[in-house]
Amino acid sequence: MAATVTIASGATWQEVAADRQKHRDAKISVLEPPLLEIKDVPQYTIPLAKEYLTAEEVTITETPVEKLVPQLAKAELSTTAVTKAFLRRAGLAQKAVNCITELLPTRALERAAYLDTYLKENGKPVGPLHGIPISVKEHIGMKGLDLNAGFVAWVGRLGEEESHILQILWRAGAVFYARTTQPQTLMHLETSSNLYGVTTNPFNTTLTSGGSSGGEGALVGFRGSCLGIGTDIGGSIRSPAANNGVYGMKPTTGRLPVAGWMATMLGAEHIIPTIGPLSTSLEGCRLFIKTLIDAKPWYKEPSLLPFPWKEEDAFKGKKLKVAVLWDDGVVKPHPPVLRALNEVVEKLKAKGNVEVVEWKPYKHDLAWEIIANLYFCDGAAEESDAINASGEPWRPLSQFIIPQNPHLQPHTITSLWKANQARDGYKAKYAQLWNETATSEGVNGELDGMVDVILCPAGPGVAPKIDTAKWWGYTSQWNLLDYPALIFPVDKVDTAKDDVKEAYEPRNEKDKFNWDLWEKFGAEGYKDAPISLQLVGRRYEDEKVIQALEIIKEETGLPFVEYV
Amino acid sequence: MAATVTIASGATWQEVAADRQKHRDAKISVLEPPLLEIKDVPQYTIPLAKEYLTAEEVTITETPVEKLVPQLAKAELSTTAVTKAFLRRAGLAQKAVNCITELLPTRALERAAYLDTYLKENGKPVGPLHGIPISVKEHIGMKGLDLNAGFVAWVGRLGEEESHILQILWRAGAVFYARTTQPQTLMHLETSSNLYGVTTNPFNTTLTSGGSSGGEGALVGFRGSCLGIGTDIGGSIRSPAANNGVYGMKPTTGRLPVAGWMATMLGAEHIIPTIGPLSTSLEGCRLFIKTLIDAKPWYKEPSLLPFPWKEEDAFKGKKLKVAVLWDDGVVKPHPPVLRALNEVVEKLKAKGNVEVVEWKPYKHDLAWEIIANLYFCDGAAEESDAINASGEPWRPLSQFIIPQNPHLQPHTITSLWKANQARDGYKAKYAQLWNETATSEGVNGELDGMVDVILCPAGPGVAPKIDTAKWWGYTSQWNLLDYPALIFPVDKVDTAKDDVKEAYEPRNEKDKFNWDLWEKFGAEGYKDAPISLQLVGRRYEDEKVIQALEIIKEETGLPFVEYV
Repeated sequence: MAATVTIASGATWQEVAADRQKHRDAKISVLEPPLLEIKDVPQYTIPLAKEYLTAEEVTITETPVEKLVPQLAKAELSTTAVTKAFLRRAGLAQKAVNCITELLPTRALERAAYLDTYLKENGKPVGPLHGIPISVKEHIGMKGLDLNAGFVAWVGRLGEEESHILQILWRAGAVFYARTTQPQTLMHLETSSNLYGVTTNPFNTTLTSGGSSGGEGALVGFRGSCLGIGTDIGGSIRSPAANNGVYGMKPTTGRLPVAGWMATMLGAEHIIPTIGPLSTSLEGCRLFIKTLIDAKPWYKEPSLLPFPWKEEDAFKGKKLKVAVLWDDGVVKPHPPVLRALNEVVEKLKAKGNVEVVEWKPYKHDLAWEIIANLYFCDGAAEESDAINASGEPWRPLSQFIIPQNPHLQPHTITSLWKANQARDGYKAKYAQLWNETATSEGVNGELDGMVDVILCPAGPGVAPKIDTAKWWGYTSQWNLLDYPALIFPVDKVDTAKDDVKEAYEPRNEKDKFNWDLWEKFGAEGYKDAPISLQLVGRRYEDEKVIQALEIIKEETGLPFVEYV
Repeated sequence: MAATVTIASGATWQEVAADRQKHRDAKISVLEPPLLEIKDVPQYTIPLAKEYLTAEEVTITETPVEKLVPQLAKAELSTTAVTKAFLRRAGLAQKAVNCITELLPTRALERAAYLDTYLKENGKPVGPLHGIPISVKEHIGMKGLDLNAGFVAWVGRLGEEESHILQILWRAGAVFYARTTQPQTLMHLETSSNLYGVTTNPFNTTLTSGGSSGGEGALVGFRGSCLGIGTDIGGSIRSPAANNGVYGMKPTTGRLPVAGWMATMLGAEHIIPTIGPLSTSLEGCRLFIKTLIDAKPWYKEPSLLPFPWKEEDAFKGKKLKVAVLWDDGVVKPHPPVLRALNEVVEKLKAKGNVEVVEWKPYKHDLAWEIIANLYFCDGAAEESDAINASGEPWRPLSQFIIPQNPHLQPHTITSLWKANQARDGYKAKYAQLWNETATSEGVNGELDGMVDVILCPAGPGVAPKIDTAKWWGYTSQWNLLDYPALIFPVDKVDTAKDDVKEAYEPRNEKDKFNWDLWEKFGAEGYKDAPISLQLVGRRYEDEKVIQALEIIKEETGLPFVEYV
């Protein structure tokens, strides 16, 4: 293997990027049978799979995790066949929407062969994820592989060991076969970098796949992965999950292992990033989280909390109470989002098994000011250094969130403590509002009859046009509050149903920016884009959120469309 | 009531202090029957109670919480009688060892009357702490009462509402009747301020009561309280508990409610302070913590974790495994501490029901450097301002921990993040060492047969001479690691048994300072001082630590002496 071209070795940023892309392409070119080049990538790329892959590969890659697990465990499918199928579909996804930093065919197929042999010799799977291919966002370190976090200057840093999360998934039987794209700084709700360019949306390539786990979002949306790992500090799991019509969960902080990832701001604890799954199924997300927590990762990673995974049904003998947040009061969602939300709510009300109430948002504009002020407490010195060290240009959304961010402040310790207090005050107020939904209070102050979950948009629209994902509020709100939040697919933009023009006077500049996009592009501009929603729970009620979505799915028959 | 004299109103620091002391004395002078003045406070003050209080008052105040609770609930004792007894003994404690900032006779007796009436009318107690008097460290805010945190300049700040912890205890039936002293800055392991002077040790008034919850320690040690509330960021519950021969627990952070306390560095989250009980009994500590957690405080205070109190026996069908840390490798404990530790260990070994192994300390000097570097991240600007605003002098131990602290650093955001990473690296290493005590590892990485608790000194000696408490390592170690730690009484200094002189070559300056004290004062200098030890568990294993101490007490018959 040739040495990696790096800035440290004297290369220009363009040479570094070209070398990374060459490396990526080389790993795809060795796949067997070779993938044909796509002549013209269509705007709606989903049908490509049936054209370029075998029927068996299509079937395998469109099987959800919970069905693959027993088939693999019983050797009805070999891990080798599953791994090859996902490698090929991931390679195809790269050619379609540019979502891969590198495939790992050699180590993945060696691993698959080991697992197949193990199963044959032992008559049992190695663990609960035996043979499941898992894709990994690039900045989650893997031993001996590049770990650049989206910065050209960081190319050449190698993972020292497998990240903790990968160690546990490995023991459980996973196969790591693909690493995925992320944006410069990791702080966009899109995925564009000078190393790999722009990752687009497989449902509509004029749109973003979202970000920062946008490689994962696009890959899982394309079914080049059934289960991937993303990270989220403002929406980075949820925006790509929503944009690509898949499930994605940002758990409460402190539940899943994060040791071994690479990013700026390591050591910051003002707003804590999380790690979590993107999957083609809700059960895929659940199994992922449960497997990790069952391994008791807190013994090795002391920042984690020793909460076992709660298997008991939170809604046994109790009616689920859902509060609907239609609009955060800052940026009004585009019509397709409100249509889908309305359809879900109407179905829930019609069935009557779930109590539905309204959620009045409390100063989500202030919440954004607080979190945007706490993201880059060093004034983004680290990001600036990391970009400028190579001479690579600032991507538009890096400019948006750093030099153009009016809330960014180079904090002193004193101003940081004040900002933390503002954050904590806001959290306490939001908790109080949630407490006030209680219908009774016990003598010891126990609250009963509270709202269980908030049902809300995942963003101010479906997947945005490239470089327009500028309102984070629908996702960053729940990072500030550290509430678990789960994205789920509902529908797709329908150019007939969603061709709505309405007179609307925007409330502010952000709202105007968002509404102008709808005015300009309309339903046709977002054609075929998945419409997703978000379900949010109180801090550490991760299990409850998943259980609530299971109920909502059953009550409403979600999703309302097929995605592949 | 006359207006409080404050710096803002133009008073000197001496005038402010004199006014606070006058206020304190006035509240004692109204007690009925009046307390006689103590002619000469003896070095060993414990016998004063029998001399100055009625036999009934002595009996009541020497009854532990778990025995008071049923007597109060069955009206065998009235809350009024109990409150009066504790008010009088607290007043006496003030005269003996200067541990009170103010008594609250009016509100406490009104509360007592309410509780007595309630019980009569309803035939049942209001809650699990019906009628239990609880003493409160001054900086835990009470509505309308001064909240100065030990700074003269802050006198005149009033609590806006009852602190969250007090609200819950109130609902459970508590009576708040006494507020206790704390040192300037709250950052001494002793209790000396310019507002109230020095709080001394009731067992030996030449010694410190410890700190920063030293008013609580002295008061509970004197039996002027059976249950008090302290706070701890480096040993501030544990040093006074240990110095005064009582139980005291620093729980893991995030379990007990802290909203409403006043201190410098609010908004800091690098080293997180905790709140917890000091009590004459282990059961008092347990009941305090359990009552708070049963009230589910996490709904109102979002920084708290929704861990229910675990009632199940952690050692059912499993042998307790205790690791003994004799010496932290930095400062060797004085002979009485090692004698007591040895006696406990020998008794455990002799009985054979508990497995005893050795704990090798890992770089506790580095741990101190890390935590001392993270205490005052603003370079102690806030403390300096708070002291200098009134012109009050810097107390010797404020000088020790701030201007003379070689690890203190005015951090930038960047240096703070690096320091946090150093902290997290140390925590991970310590966790690894604990994991390595496992005797087996499951296929999913589960660890079995690990050490349950560490048994260790509570400090480098018994209660220190005034202004000599300079080695925090035996307590601050567990703040850095955020491990729950429980202090328990074992014995008292015995001038015969402990009159040990040994040739010892100190390892470093800190060790020399500590050893020189022993050389200079010997057993005679620390006569009658309680000897206490510390039991430490892994993060969030608070319940297990308490259960382990119950076992150790039963196995060894602790404590080995009577304290009153």
